[in-house]
Amino acid sequence: MARPRRSEKSKQELIAIGALDLAENGFNGTGLKQLLDQAGVPKGSFYNYFDSKEHFAAEIVRHYNQLLLDLLMARAAEPDISPLSALRQAYEDLIALTESRDCRQNCLLGSLAAEIAATSDLCRQAISDAYGAWHLRVTEMLVYAQAGHEIRRDLPAADLADMFWNAWQGAQIRMLIDRNTAPLKQTLDMVLDHLFRPQNPTAEPAGQNGATP
Amino acid sequence: MARPRRSEKSKQELIAIGALDLAENGFNGTGLKQLLDQAGVPKGSFYNYFDSKEHFAAEIVRHYNQLLLDLLMARAAEPDISPLSALRQAYEDLIALTESRDCRQNCLLGSLAAEIAATSDLCRQAISDAYGAWHLRVTEMLVYAQAGHEIRRDLPAADLADMFWNAWQGAQIRMLIDRNTAPLKQTLDMVLDHLFRPQNPTAEPAGQNGATP
Repeated sequence: MARPRRSEKSKQELIAIGALDLAENGFNGTGLKQLLDQAGVPKGSFYNYFDSKEHFAAEIVRHYNQLLLDLLMARAAEPDISPLSALRQAYEDLIALTESRDCRQNCLLGSLAAEIAATSDLCRQAISDAYGAWHLRVTEMLVYAQAGHEIRRDLPAADLADMFWNAWQGAQIRMLIDRNTAPLKQTLDMVLDHLFRPQNPTAEPAGQNGATP
Repeated sequence: MARPRRSEKSKQELIAIGALDLAENGFNGTGLKQLLDQAGVPKGSFYNYFDSKEHFAAEIVRHYNQLLLDLLMARAAEPDISPLSALRQAYEDLIALTESRDCRQNCLLGSLAAEIAATSDLCRQAISDAYGAWHLRVTEMLVYAQAGHEIRRDLPAADLADMFWNAWQGAQIRMLIDRNTAPLKQTLDMVLDHLFRPQNPTAEPAGQNGATP
């Protein structure tokens, strides 16, 4: 593989460092000067890489979401793993990552949305696209989990995916408040083991898979 | 009742205006100068009212949370209303309020936590206290709802309260992304009508109220 050009490498470094900074300090709390220093990129050259701080944040959203999608795909591709176990494993990986970062970093999509979705249409659109891609992948995993009777089939997989995301976002906020990952673990167990648990079969709709994702 | 002193009135005005500003623009995106102009308070006098911007935000958290607790209490105190209906009504009131504000304002506890819990221990503590007070009230409503067989009894009411908060926070982030209240309505229905629905009675623990809040 060809070695990336220096400018491309610097851009990728800015995105990687920026993702950490944004997750911990937020959009308005992230200073570009400090970021450029960390990346060893000359001051004043930021706008050679990105049109604006908003464009920078939007690229970080895409980068960050792709890492999450790759993690989900990697777990789902493991031999003999069930769809529900793959989803659980991917989120247990995220919990371990959060612990390694001292519970100071929230999901970037959620925290950025909370901070600037109301004021930046560009970032809002990037987050919306990222959510759409995540939702597609997780709905697919939940459809397979329904087909294998691992989870309830009386509700559409797409709605369960929305609910999983909701619960995870809220749990992360509680994780930031408590500064430990207990709310994340509690939520993963509560959602996957209890709220999504297969229902009484007589309560399920007729047909091979009554849920319409 | 004695008329409040001018300084107390100004302080309350700053808190009320600040709550709206913080909810829309975040902590770092809220400018004190503009806020003082809006409240008609002389520039430079901010520190007569608050020790710091962090102390200001902490007071807003307490003020905002008290409004939410009062809303829950007002609905619960209505004659002949069931505990579950009271909870639903209070959150439908919040949805109506959100619509009146063009879906640009998130729950202040969640958005502030996401933005500054990692960097401000003072605000983190204020949010933690607010969450504790909310959790106490909603757990109590859910204990009564369990006693009346309105919701499932196989899980502790305190855990269901955590889950309700989680789901609501995530739904609000999706509301900011989509800029409409559909995610809030979907989540309220999903949680209260489906995920919290009473289970098959044979699956419930024995005893008058097996759930231990």
